Order: sequence, then C-alpha cells, then structure tokens
Amino acid sequence: MADKLKTKKFPEVQGGGSLILAWRIKDKKVLVIGGGEVAAGRILNCLDADAKVTVVCPASGLNPEVAHRVEHAQVTHVDRLFEPSDLDRADMVLVAIDDPAASTTIWKLCKERRIPANIADVPPECDFYFGSVHRDGPLQIMVSTNGKGPRLAAIIRRQIAKSLPKNAGNAIEAIGTLRAKLRKIAPNPEESPKRMGWMIKVSNKYDWNEFCDLTDEDMENLLTFYAGGQVPTIDDLLAMRRNPGFNANDVFDGSFGFCVGV
Amino acid sequence: MADKLKTKKFPEVQGGGSLILAWRIKDKKVLVIGGGEVAAGRILNCLDADAKVTVVCPASGLNPEVAHRVEHAQVTHVDRLFEPSDLDRADMVLVAIDDPAASTTIWKLCKERRIPANIADVPPECDFYFGSVHRDGPLQIMVSTNGKGPRLAAIIRRQIAKSLPKNAGNAIEAIGTLRAKLRKIAPNPEESPKRMGWMIKVSNKYDWNEFCDLTDEDMENLLTFYAGGQVPTIDDLLAMRRNPGFNANDVFDGSFGFCVGV
Repeated sequence: MADKLKTKKFPEVQGGGSLILAWRIKDKKVLVIGGGEVAAGRILNCLDADAKVTVVCPASGLNPEVAHRVEHAQVTHVDRLFEPSDLDRADMVLVAIDDPAASTTIWKLCKERRIPANIADVPPECDFYFGSVHRDGPLQIMVSTNGKGPRLAAIIRRQIAKSLPKNAGNAIEAIGTLRAKLRKIAPNPEESPKRMGWMIKVSNKYDWNEFCDLTDEDMENLLTFYAGGQVPTIDDLLAMRRNPGFNANDVFDGSFGFCVGV
Repeated sequence: MADKLKTKKFPEVQGGGSLILAWRIKDKKVLVIGGGEVAAGRILNCLDADAKVTVVCPASGLNPEVAHRVEHAQVTHVDRLFEPSDLDRADMVLVAIDDPAASTTIWKLCKERRIPANIADVPPECDFYFGSVHRDGPLQIMVSTNGKGPRLAAIIRRQIAKSLPKNAGNAIEAIGTLRAKLRKIAPNPEESPKRMGWMIKVSNKYDWNEFCDLTDEDMENLLTFYAGGQVPTIDDLLAMRRNPGFNANDVFDGSFGFCVGV
C-alpha cells in the first residue's frame, strides 16, 4: 500500500509516443533531394526556420513551387541527380524521390555519417517525422497522431487554429516585448527573481485572450506597476488608455476606479 | 503584374520559426546527464517515446522522481559524474546539470561526434528545444512560442487540451484501427488508391467529434460499405447498431432508413 502510494506520486510512463522537438536549423545546411510536391513542402518548412537549403534535382524535375524558390534565390539548386559528395557538409537530409532503391542508398550513407535524415513515405528510414503544423508568428503548434491518421492530424490542426484568438501570435509577441522592456527598465541580474515573479503574476492575472489586445501603450502603462510588484486588473489597464494622466499609484490607492467610474 | 500574380501562388516564407519534428527514439540510446527536476522531465519525455535511457549522476544527486525511475529499472543508472566515454554509443544527449563549464565541454564533445544534444537553459548550446506537449494516446500536440513565452505556451497547451473532445486519443486509435482492418480485408497493393480514396471519403463524411464514438462494431459495419465505395451517414451507421441484420446494401437501396424509421 505504502509502495503503491509512493508509485502514484510520479507521472506514469505512456509509451508509444514520439519525442517532439523544435529543431534549431537557422543557418544549418539542409539538403533536400528531389524537387516534387513533397520536396516543396519540406523546403517551405526549412525556410520558415531560416535554414540554408540546397535542392538536388535535375531542372526538368522541379515542380512550379520549387522552381519559384530556385528562381528567387531562396534555395541553392544543384541541377543533377544525387551524388554522395552532396552529403559532405549537410546537417540534415530530406529525401523525396520516387526511387526506393536510391532512397535506401542515401539513407544508409546518412546513417554512416550520422546525419539526421527523413526518407518521405518510408517510415523505417526516418530519424524523425513531419507533422501538421499551425504557424502564427512566433507561435507554432504541431499535431502528430504518430502515424495513425495523418489526415485527422490536419483536421485537428485546423480545429485548433480556429479555436485560437485571431491574433494569438500578437499576444506572444506582446509577452516577448513586455519581457524585453522589463529587462531594460530593470536590467540588474540580481533582480531576475523579482522580474520572473512579476511576469508570472502578469501571466496569471490576465486571461490569455486578453493578452492579444494589449497595445504598446498598455504595456508601458503595465510596466509602471513593476516597481511596486503589483499587477492591475485588465479593466484598470484598459481604462488607463483613456486617462493618460493616471499611473500605478492612482490605481492602487483607490482613486483610479473612482475617477474613471469603474 | 503577371509576375506578381505568379509570386502570389506560392506560400510566402515566414522566417523565425523552428522545424518541429516528431523524433523517433524507440530503442535509441539517450544519455541524460544530471538527475534533478529538469532531468526528471526529460527522462519522462524519452520514456514516453520508448527510448533506452541512461542517467549519469551520482546517486546522492538524484531527485525522488529520477530515483523512482532507477529503482523501477525504467532507466539505466551510472552512479558517478560524466566521463567522455559515456558518449560512445549515445544517439542523443540531454544535459541538465548546474555546471556551465562542464555543460559546455559536453556540448563540444557532442558536436565533434555529431550527436544531437540539448544543454538545458543554454539556448546557444542546443540542437533542439523542448516545448509544451499535450499527450492523449497516439495524439501529441506540441506548442512552441520559439522562446518568447514558455509560460504562455503551457497556458495555450492547457486551453487546447480543454477544447479537444475528451476521447480524442480514442478517435485516432479508431482511425488507425479502421485503416488496419481495411488493409486486412483489401490487402492487394493494387487496391491502395481505392483504399486511400475511401479513407479520405470517410474522413470527409464525419465530423471529427463523431469518430470518437465509433465502436469496434460500428467499424465492422462501416467496412461493409468499402466494396461499393460508399460511406453511410453517421445516423445510418449508428442505427445499424440497433439493427444487426442490416448491411451496406440495405442502406443504399433506400430500405434501411424506411425500416429503422429515420
């Protein structure tokens, strides 16, 4: 019994999942082999993450989207079939060609060289899978069904996208901005616990939908409360927009609500 | 103008994101260096993805959760400080120790050996970041704010979790089961386009909430429609539960609705 209680304290392992990670590939060299529709999707994923993408594919095999990326110098194009030396400086390899034997050869070369690789549509020849990703500025939400239903993953992703406030990305930018502004007005490293504590207070005080509507002015107003370690209600904060003369002291000495009629 | 129209056809690159990937680490060797609270979280993430986890940390430094994983043989424990030979067979390295100099040394060793690594709390010494992940059976949803607001990521994850049907994981298992059953009754590889086409029809016909309620019996009933390439309405399908004598032909010749009074 005692042992059972002890066991229950810790989260139980739920096997069968994947390890979902946000891979930093800014300025990393990603080699995409193939130039069709699947390659086009992979290329966009990598460009969205600021990678240096090289596409190896004869020009005749490029689909219009990949050709567009080449034409606009968004990717480097190697106009021929794959050669093993292409792997020489690659940090990641994505293969999307209709040639299972060639794909397997490339996969084996990648494994010899310890280069993470994904061979499209060949799950056993993948170090990682792509999922269905919603993107809104700094916000990225990835839905994976661990291969059980890729179509359902896309449906769930669209449903999640619909359920988010329209400017969720802005809310996150706003929090990032607030954190950066706070670091400017209170740069002392020793104040770090106070800064973190106040940011947590802010996060807890407002509904996350409310973050979306914060303007730059609201944020400056909000920051005036930091020194006193206080966080105004959203109503007080919004009322300050219309009453530029008021500040943190007015809100917490009770005169603010009285003046603006809340 | 013509060029403008041409450009607009393709999705625009939105830089600044990460490449979010579902990493396959089943049976892969993950080395966790450190045994504190952060390590405990990393270990659970890896065990949930069926990795073989080795924890390097003096026994005195294990927190209760990590000690529990060791005690229950969920991880291999190396009871000492890190040594470079620990990296010898590692596929991935996660460092969570309070020693920046030692962390940097380990990071450099990993990079020499091309082992993907994450040094907790040191963004420049990370090949990848962890995010806030919702898990429900085969469904995994990862929220990343690309470092702008980790706390907000957790809030969004909880909000998404609340907005999903309670048994979303079941719905995905159901789709996976349906696909597997279909492959059994129509195993011919040449039938693959027909199978895929029918699965897409099924996905489009039902609300994704409706998938959650499909029983094994409903699925068997649904599969009787495959041969004719048809998909019944959810009402017809549910009505079949109560009328076990009816089959696909009855539904589509019009007699079914009449008999069950829909």
